[in-house]
Amino acid sequence: MDYKNKLKKTVRKKNSHLIAGIDPDVTKFPEFIYKKKNPLYEFCRFIIEKTSDLVAGYKFNIAFFEAEGHIGIETLEQLLKEKKEDLIYICDAKRGDIGNTSEQYAKAYLDKMNFDAITVSPYMGVDSAEPFLKRQDKLVYVLALTSNKGSKDFQKLWIGSKLFYELVIEKFLESGYSNLGFVMGADYAKEINRITSVKENIPLLIPGIGAQGGDIENLMKNIKNDSYLINSGRNILYAGKYDDNPKIYEEKVRLECVNLNNAIK
Amino acid sequence: MDYKNKLKKTVRKKNSHLIAGIDPDVTKFPEFIYKKKNPLYEFCRFIIEKTSDLVAGYKFNIAFFEAEGHIGIETLEQLLKEKKEDLIYICDAKRGDIGNTSEQYAKAYLDKMNFDAITVSPYMGVDSAEPFLKRQDKLVYVLALTSNKGSKDFQKLWIGSKLFYELVIEKFLESGYSNLGFVMGADYAKEINRITSVKENIPLLIPGIGAQGGDIENLMKNIKNDSYLINSGRNILYAGKYDDNPKIYEEKVRLECVNLNNAIK
Repeated sequence: MDYKNKLKKTVRKKNSHLIAGIDPDVTKFPEFIYKKKNPLYEFCRFIIEKTSDLVAGYKFNIAFFEAEGHIGIETLEQLLKEKKEDLIYICDAKRGDIGNTSEQYAKAYLDKMNFDAITVSPYMGVDSAEPFLKRQDKLVYVLALTSNKGSKDFQKLWIGSKLFYELVIEKFLESGYSNLGFVMGADYAKEINRITSVKENIPLLIPGIGAQGGDIENLMKNIKNDSYLINSGRNILYAGKYDDNPKIYEEKVRLECVNLNNAIK
Repeated sequence: MDYKNKLKKTVRKKNSHLIAGIDPDVTKFPEFIYKKKNPLYEFCRFIIEKTSDLVAGYKFNIAFFEAEGHIGIETLEQLLKEKKEDLIYICDAKRGDIGNTSEQYAKAYLDKMNFDAITVSPYMGVDSAEPFLKRQDKLVYVLALTSNKGSKDFQKLWIGSKLFYELVIEKFLESGYSNLGFVMGADYAKEINRITSVKENIPLLIPGIGAQGGDIENLMKNIKNDSYLINSGRNILYAGKYDDNPKIYEEKVRLECVNLNNAIK
């Protein structure tokens, strides 16, 4: 099944457009996790086990695994071996390089780890994303408008009558690949309105609610298609941060997911 | 010692501006390497041991290690533990993300592995590079003009009276950090001339000679400062590709380095 079908099916089945961002900071786990042999693994597994009925999937932030060296990558491999096939697993890697190098990244994340989708940085041009795009059952989320302050440095510059990020979207769509989506930060509700009004089926990955502070109500009014996923990381992961009781921690994590699902609806 | 001083000293001591690109494709090693327990490690170690007197340093292409999963990363860690401190070790990772995520990448590569420099993708803006830049003894090579065909898609678009990659350079230089350099492909001799004529001390990392086909003679005429490094990967690594005799393979690899050093002079 290709990604767009999986997305549709998963969103319907789970009744959720929510993605939990797996950004596991090893300095921020509850005490009951540190008692285990591999806290990084135990924390991610705990979050996934306790939320899998409440979300459409997970976005793994690869940096947090790389920061733990080869043990971190081994942990990531293990989590992907245990992948729940009825959920969407997104690799948030923001890679992008010359062809033979992007091919290696595609092998690592789309073939071997079997992620359903990957985020890609567009700076080097469309050919730098082709090794990912050629895996046609996978989706490539190209960075368009990101949720950090610095997104304004380049993404919102005018090039003729268009903004730079609009040109990025246009150029990638011209490539003819259909397994394309875009990353657009939650703060950019107006811009999200514009693209989802025109492009009925374009999948958007929307970070920046919660810890990054986006206004969810305003955002929801402006999403005009049904192929979006909204990511929340820290708000879900550390919802129970002052609780060392696994049961209470679980409840707080689940409550945060329920609240986010309600806010999205 | 900060990077710019190390660069100056290393180039003088080794009498070389050449960087060997460590892009180890596990399908392309000579037979005598496959007989060893960890061919990826043995091949990289072989190349480094046999060339360390002929180059200014090494650029590790992280994708080729990631493609081998946690074993690849463990291998990379081992190679960095054996780092030769009189040579420059560059992490070619092209990362760039929101602050808390770039911080994790910086930890992984600049702190733990202790690379001297890292390549960074500018799409998300200056703040996405700050965690790297804050390690002030390390250098950050920001992608400006890359050596792939797709570099023209965005990097050479006009924004007002400037090209996009020029704006990237300008914006990063405005940040005030002095530990900044740029990646500019060997094909862009004219553009390299322009920036090195104005910016006396700006470190450039120049890929794209050899397998990627840049014209080295024309390039050399146009480099107007002394802080450049020229990368060649596949031409060095696979110079002995039809030879299964380690001694002959070594000779061919060394000869390629000597030829490249001569061409650079």
